[in-house]
Amino acid sequence: MKVYFDNAATTRVRKEVVKAMKPFFDLDYGNASSLHSFGVSARKAVEESRARIAKSIGVSPEEVFFTSGATEADNMALKGMAFAAKKQGKNHLIVSSIEHHAILHTADWLESRGFTITRLPVDESGFVKASDLEDAITDKTFLVSIMYANNEIGTIEPIKELSKICAEKNVPFHTDAVQALGKIPLELENVSMASFSAHKLYGPKGVGILFKRAGTNIEPLLHGGGHEFGLRSGTENVPGIVGMAKAMELARKEMKTEAMRQSKMRDKLMNGILEVPSTRINGHKTKRLPNNINASFSFIEGESLVLRLDKEGIMASTGSACSSPNLEPSHVLLAIGLKPAEAHGSLRLTLGRFNKMKEVDYFLEVLSPVVKDLRKISPFGGQ
Amino acid sequence: MKVYFDNAATTRVRKEVVKAMKPFFDLDYGNASSLHSFGVSARKAVEESRARIAKSIGVSPEEVFFTSGATEADNMALKGMAFAAKKQGKNHLIVSSIEHHAILHTADWLESRGFTITRLPVDESGFVKASDLEDAITDKTFLVSIMYANNEIGTIEPIKELSKICAEKNVPFHTDAVQALGKIPLELENVSMASFSAHKLYGPKGVGILFKRAGTNIEPLLHGGGHEFGLRSGTENVPGIVGMAKAMELARKEMKTEAMRQSKMRDKLMNGILEVPSTRINGHKTKRLPNNINASFSFIEGESLVLRLDKEGIMASTGSACSSPNLEPSHVLLAIGLKPAEAHGSLRLTLGRFNKMKEVDYFLEVLSPVVKDLRKISPFGGQ
Repeated sequence: MKVYFDNAATTRVRKEVVKAMKPFFDLDYGNASSLHSFGVSARKAVEESRARIAKSIGVSPEEVFFTSGATEADNMALKGMAFAAKKQGKNHLIVSSIEHHAILHTADWLESRGFTITRLPVDESGFVKASDLEDAITDKTFLVSIMYANNEIGTIEPIKELSKICAEKNVPFHTDAVQALGKIPLELENVSMASFSAHKLYGPKGVGILFKRAGTNIEPLLHGGGHEFGLRSGTENVPGIVGMAKAMELARKEMKTEAMRQSKMRDKLMNGILEVPSTRINGHKTKRLPNNINASFSFIEGESLVLRLDKEGIMASTGSACSSPNLEPSHVLLAIGLKPAEAHGSLRLTLGRFNKMKEVDYFLEVLSPVVKDLRKISPFGGQ
Repeated sequence: MKVYFDNAATTRVRKEVVKAMKPFFDLDYGNASSLHSFGVSARKAVEESRARIAKSIGVSPEEVFFTSGATEADNMALKGMAFAAKKQGKNHLIVSSIEHHAILHTADWLESRGFTITRLPVDESGFVKASDLEDAITDKTFLVSIMYANNEIGTIEPIKELSKICAEKNVPFHTDAVQALGKIPLELENVSMASFSAHKLYGPKGVGILFKRAGTNIEPLLHGGGHEFGLRSGTENVPGIVGMAKAMELARKEMKTEAMRQSKMRDKLMNGILEVPSTRINGHKTKRLPNNINASFSFIEGESLVLRLDKEGIMASTGSACSSPNLEPSHVLLAIGLKPAEAHGSLRLTLGRFNKMKEVDYFLEVLSPVVKDLRKISPFGGQ
């Protein structure tokens, strides 16, 4: 049995999406900037996709900017705003300490170039405290960036409350909403910018979106032919854009039923894991993504656990998939108060629309003996 | 008859490429950073593609960095080098005046941030003069960026000579080689960096490459998970990367025969166009890409000509496709000395592997009456 429990890292492109993309590779393959009929047809596909995406998240089409993915969207939001703000004499950026590296490492780079960064702490569940945010904002603050839901521990931040604080103080608010998109309802009312990715949602890799509210002023990150209303140059990835629109529409339609279905599997997994001795669940019990499970297993290494589970046909991750080659303990798990050893022994399971309850049962069957085995040979002790 | 003569804008993805990409959408869909078997398989696909691409352009695999396209590669090269150079007290960038907007507008942005830019003139064929480059280099010059072949007029720059001058003066040399790749042999011996795109070569949109020679030091443009040897973060676009490798390999194999075949069609088109009264060919007669034709038709607007040809089933462009929505006359045609009216009356035909001689004949049959018609109603005069 092959069980894919790593849907926060990436997802299988669903067949409806592959089908929607297909004609734009070799039949309707025009450049959307060309004046002729193939160009017009490509432009139509891009703009229809933009309109459908805008509708699916409740914003205007001219507020949707296609990028190569969420990393680019995050870089574009933070750097674009930083370079624009510098001209107004503002130099202060606030992020949370559990952001994705696309935010944290961009913030580090800005810091190395003279900007001031505040990294807000989080509590033991991973929540940013509203009062901490309020206290951090100064008249030099040009942007606050706090993720919608955490990619490692699934914690859903109080974005409505946090973005409202910023709106009241007239400070733009950005959210990396990659893991939240299509899984929980998004409240973007006071959000100025948000980053999204297609490949976490049964769409293709290599395409994402920056939502940027009209009136929010940023500088482009990619200069060139003036595509995307002058804000993001580069020939439009027509099949990717069409695929992303399709994936977002379908995800929205089935969001409620999938959230219910997946959270049942999630809860069964969390309870089952807790039956194994010396384990803990990381993140909040209920205010977490319906598809996210994060657990720590004392006395073993997450890497060993992932590799051993892989032998049993189960694909999972430890820490964030994006930094798996990195052997540092997860910054998210450290931020919620885990000791490095506990952080090293973490396992992340992320469910998706293709997972079934029988896979959950299979995992729980396999887990206990695998953990026992690993603990036997563990240099950290244990049984 | 549908005739696609706009292959410099984008190309049809060839069936071998679509076939190579397909399994990576919905079967082998892992994240190349994941530790489990799907991750390992994706990583293998990425690294095999990197190795094949490196081999096909005669560089080392660790010198190949995947991007979302050539615009990103150009921005990465120029800005990455600018930010790195600033720390060494260097602030001078040299480009040619006929570069793609991805270079020129990036240079403009750097200029607005305090860098000094020299824009080298070109002669009436579009060639940069070696002596102009030599004279322009100062001890503050951190980079010279000159395209391999021009996207509008097809002029092939003397890259071997220009890059040698830079190597001798220890100044890094970058070339936007998008239009040259797969069409003419590349001489990268003294080139420090080069940008490439897949979708101009029967590969997919949304993927490109920055070749960066080992030892050439630049800062990343996209910060995040540390992908691409820490230089370009963002989940690898596995199907896109696999598709690009396939497209480059195939293009290399058939380069000689295709260059010969296409240049015959090109020459017939150029000669046929010159038989229409009051026309001129822009660019050099022989030192041009085998697939590029650029002509000016007095008394008519390029836009009108493109739209009228489209009605006859012929897809072509005027100026650069990437800036077609822009009504400014082409900066390339102005740089080689055309008057704005001549530049406005330009037509670009770019051939590809799917074009046939009978399409050339059809075009030439249609052209003369179309031009006559347009001149009849032209506000600029003519017959």
